[in-house]
Amino acid sequence: MDVGYHSYETESTHTAGKVITCKAAVAWGPGQPLVIEDVQVAPPQKMEVRVKILFTSICHTDLSSWKGENEAQRAYPRILGHEAAGIVESVGEGVEDMKIGDHVIPFFQGECGTCICCRSQKTNLCQKFGVNPLKSVMVNDGKTRFSTMDGNPIFHFLNTSTFSQYTVLDSACVVKIDTKAPLEKMSLLSCGVSTGVGAAWNVANLQPGSSVAIFGLGAVGLAVAEGARVRGASKIIGVDINPSKFFKGKAVGITEFINPKDLDVPVHEKIGAITVGGVDYSFECVGNLEVLREAFLSTHTGWGLTVLLGIHPSPMLLPLHPMELFNGRQIVGSIFGGFKGKTQLPKLAEQCMCGTLNLDEFITHELPFHNINEAFQLLIEGKSLRCLLHL
Amino acid sequence: MDVGYHSYETESTHTAGKVITCKAAVAWGPGQPLVIEDVQVAPPQKMEVRVKILFTSICHTDLSSWKGENEAQRAYPRILGHEAAGIVESVGEGVEDMKIGDHVIPFFQGECGTCICCRSQKTNLCQKFGVNPLKSVMVNDGKTRFSTMDGNPIFHFLNTSTFSQYTVLDSACVVKIDTKAPLEKMSLLSCGVSTGVGAAWNVANLQPGSSVAIFGLGAVGLAVAEGARVRGASKIIGVDINPSKFFKGKAVGITEFINPKDLDVPVHEKIGAITVGGVDYSFECVGNLEVLREAFLSTHTGWGLTVLLGIHPSPMLLPLHPMELFNGRQIVGSIFGGFKGKTQLPKLAEQCMCGTLNLDEFITHELPFHNINEAFQLLIEGKSLRCLLHL
Repeated sequence: MDVGYHSYETESTHTAGKVITCKAAVAWGPGQPLVIEDVQVAPPQKMEVRVKILFTSICHTDLSSWKGENEAQRAYPRILGHEAAGIVESVGEGVEDMKIGDHVIPFFQGECGTCICCRSQKTNLCQKFGVNPLKSVMVNDGKTRFSTMDGNPIFHFLNTSTFSQYTVLDSACVVKIDTKAPLEKMSLLSCGVSTGVGAAWNVANLQPGSSVAIFGLGAVGLAVAEGARVRGASKIIGVDINPSKFFKGKAVGITEFINPKDLDVPVHEKIGAITVGGVDYSFECVGNLEVLREAFLSTHTGWGLTVLLGIHPSPMLLPLHPMELFNGRQIVGSIFGGFKGKTQLPKLAEQCMCGTLNLDEFITHELPFHNINEAFQLLIEGKSLRCLLHL
Repeated sequence: MDVGYHSYETESTHTAGKVITCKAAVAWGPGQPLVIEDVQVAPPQKMEVRVKILFTSICHTDLSSWKGENEAQRAYPRILGHEAAGIVESVGEGVEDMKIGDHVIPFFQGECGTCICCRSQKTNLCQKFGVNPLKSVMVNDGKTRFSTMDGNPIFHFLNTSTFSQYTVLDSACVVKIDTKAPLEKMSLLSCGVSTGVGAAWNVANLQPGSSVAIFGLGAVGLAVAEGARVRGASKIIGVDINPSKFFKGKAVGITEFINPKDLDVPVHEKIGAITVGGVDYSFECVGNLEVLREAFLSTHTGWGLTVLLGIHPSPMLLPLHPMELFNGRQIVGSIFGGFKGKTQLPKLAEQCMCGTLNLDEFITHELPFHNINEAFQLLIEGKSLRCLLHL
């Protein structure tokens, strides 16, 4: 499909420095259908970038925020969305690593490059632009860059707000990639695929021959499988109660499937039996405490590592006894797959371009932007992995 | 002190293959004073070793087992004790790495050398001779090597049972060390000091310049400090509610002390303030869930690692929310400091001999074996780190 973005540079010189009026999908209240309407997008301020979003997709975090599951995180009207790809329309003062016309990926887990965490090789949790679901305004002035046509603020979301034809991001939350990379697929690197692949590569640091169990085969879980396949895992077990996920799973290298509903023993016992004691790594991509415990117990004593990717909104305790950690099993959380967005996403994009990483299976649907509510429904019903919206 | 063990070989040729009658401290019921009495010790069977114990000391695990805190683990009459050093009296069939007269250290976390865990570099949890508090007999025949003078069995404890002038161990649970190593100090390597030093070296893998907080300044906690000092930690914070521990702490390199009773804020806030955001590593050496949570929160987000060393007998959940793991803090359990006893203890003994590791501060008291109940009391009252008993 020709989206005409190679001729974009000339167009944007007319808008730089001005307020842009464009279409956005605005959330007006918890669970209410998004409304596609005209919004105003202010020019980027110091160290900010205004991006023309060409493609965006929907992740479960958008879903739970749309539903307003966590009351403290509610803010309306708001522009959700955090998985996208686009082109730089203009940059604010001080931005030197991007210019008009650059192809870019926004990312919710920023990288300022200067804080103690960004300077450490041990973490991708930026202290200044790390993900914060309570944040709804820009860091620079505590205000929004979005407003309704009558001038009322529209709140930001997860440092990104990509359900808009134009968005303003802190430059720490957007990175330039190779112009030749297919932008429609690059959207996947903005969250889901990076989160899964990075959990396998950066967090677990999977070695060839490792055994893996993945709990939850949505886009993130399948991306873990893809990451494990690339790293040469010998056994990749997929666990899901929705058997329709198994077909996709085969394409990304899953070697065995378990549907807990088909078993008369706990999943971890089944996994222990088919792996002689448990897998080397398990990945919890559901956000459910019972699943978390099964994932933990599915790993081998002595060295098993469970990586948490699923979001656990309820304020419950970890379903583990301290002494269970003395069996040598470990558990670790993972945000954005441990990727430092600025530093590492350009290379990840290259790995997709050269075919090391295969993204073909992840986009199951494509729709025009104005069908966004339909795309939400596809995700809710478990019918889509990612529905790519064309803005 | 001359304990005469250099001339031991000749003596033991008279006892090999025979039942030995000797003194042992027998536990007859929970919390009852130990009784020093004559017991019979059978010869070692296949892959077993009979050791003349010269020195033993008392660890908190002996204390909780003596009290019978965990009903499922009770077994009487029993010979407790797991921290000791001695000399091989005789070996059973198939033992090739030890012979009569060798100086040895028993260790409760065995190393068979052949199971999947022993063959892995990732763990020291032997599948065959790993510590098991429920175990009270030998693996070979499911029977005891100890009996009363009228022939009734006396149960084993933690693969070791060192409160006896002679004990029988699986060869996987005892290792030969350099004859020139001072056996009285080597007793410390049998549990407490190895557990602490290994937590810093093997489990945390402390790097020079790291910051450390240690919760609980008993022998294990002070051994963590000694391990951290050797590795070049820049800041070693000791936390204990018993200020008398602070004096010893200085000698092993603790740079700052916190008595939680002197604070009007939680310990983790104080540590966060004096370390700009938290320590790199914290060590929980108490076995208390509130302390565990403070230790966890005392580490820096992004990379902080909490190592659990304290035993948590109550069946409570970890006092952590799954989402708290997404802050990049990790928690890991540690048994015997991650040391593989057979493979690594001989080198650790050498490091003590050449002064790399300083054990001078750990033995605070010495008593004859028959004063063992007095030694228990010293530990209960927090007056001793280690009281060395001479058998």
